[in-house]
Amino acid sequence: MDKTNISKPSLRRLPVYLSYLKTLPPSTRTISATAVAAALGLNEVQVRKDLSAASSSGGRPKMGYAVEELIADLEDFLGYRSTKEAVLIGVGRLGGALLSFKGFEECGMRIVAAFDNDPTKIGGRIGDVHIYDIRDFPAVCQQQGARIGILTTSPEHAQMLCDLMLQNGILAIWNFSTAHLEVPENIIIHNENLAVSLAMISHDLEEMMGKQKQ
Amino acid sequence: MDKTNISKPSLRRLPVYLSYLKTLPPSTRTISATAVAAALGLNEVQVRKDLSAASSSGGRPKMGYAVEELIADLEDFLGYRSTKEAVLIGVGRLGGALLSFKGFEECGMRIVAAFDNDPTKIGGRIGDVHIYDIRDFPAVCQQQGARIGILTTSPEHAQMLCDLMLQNGILAIWNFSTAHLEVPENIIIHNENLAVSLAMISHDLEEMMGKQKQ
Repeated sequence: MDKTNISKPSLRRLPVYLSYLKTLPPSTRTISATAVAAALGLNEVQVRKDLSAASSSGGRPKMGYAVEELIADLEDFLGYRSTKEAVLIGVGRLGGALLSFKGFEECGMRIVAAFDNDPTKIGGRIGDVHIYDIRDFPAVCQQQGARIGILTTSPEHAQMLCDLMLQNGILAIWNFSTAHLEVPENIIIHNENLAVSLAMISHDLEEMMGKQKQ
Repeated sequence: MDKTNISKPSLRRLPVYLSYLKTLPPSTRTISATAVAAALGLNEVQVRKDLSAASSSGGRPKMGYAVEELIADLEDFLGYRSTKEAVLIGVGRLGGALLSFKGFEECGMRIVAAFDNDPTKIGGRIGDVHIYDIRDFPAVCQQQGARIGILTTSPEHAQMLCDLMLQNGILAIWNFSTAHLEVPENIIIHNENLAVSLAMISHDLEEMMGKQKQ
């Protein structure tokens, strides 16, 4: 299956299908694209197309998809079954929340080490993750062979720490800081910007309240 | 200015422009769309269009935008200058991280109350926010006139708590739980799903590593 041909909006929907399928009772052996679309309030044609792009087993007419197989296909397509190592810099409240989040392992990511410069944090652990001195970053990161770097620091130091990550084998930066980061073209960057989400919500809310006034 | 005509991708970029503009030294009095585009690695035509949609003052040929005015226009367009009250349910690690996040107020959102059912948390506060018993939700939420509800609970109780929010005047749900929520059509819902972000990163990473092997 060619994974590179799928569109970004389709890719965004796959984890949503997956988490829905996992909530189904074990008695539900098969499910149709129509039923998935109805449950999630999505367009049926779109759901059918998404599922057939991601599932090699394919749905059978009238029968639909075997739920267990479809879950396996989606997990496989999304790379959940091959573990990717990640490191995290910045063990503040948000960093701590991510370190204790149980959902990453089932998505195929394992945080193998965390880093901070606060002596009261260094040497401790959150969940299963040890907190190292940021000065040990090059040695630990390279030894662990991590490819994903999670950045949960204040914006002032974000670029410097991003550069440190890239110098030590990190290929994808998951940026939770509000800083705009400059990275070479071949590096993957994913900005998790709460201000952007909030802007979307505020905009929709103002529009809705404007309509109610009319 | 008609705020409802702007596209979602444009709207997503506005906070990014804004945070970039705020990093400029005070000596930078004016800036062109070209310079903004170059700094952020974006398409120049797109940036020009986005800025002219959001700014009433407008850029002058050769001069560009007055930075201070452009910041004010963007903040105004994004609704950062009118405060919207929000409540939060679920004071776990993620909830706690959001309560102590300093960036929301400057985006025009103020968390006025938090709720949990854990007796060791009830009565406490994080930052300036008091933590109430979830049983007091209807009274407190209505009294505060909150319109945004932030949901940071485990997925099992998310739908029930979402319904509770909607029964008490909440119009927009910011869902950080991994649950799929059913809401009436007129309600705004914004899902903050880390699994979706991770799927995007994993996909790009596998694609990149596949290319390197070839």
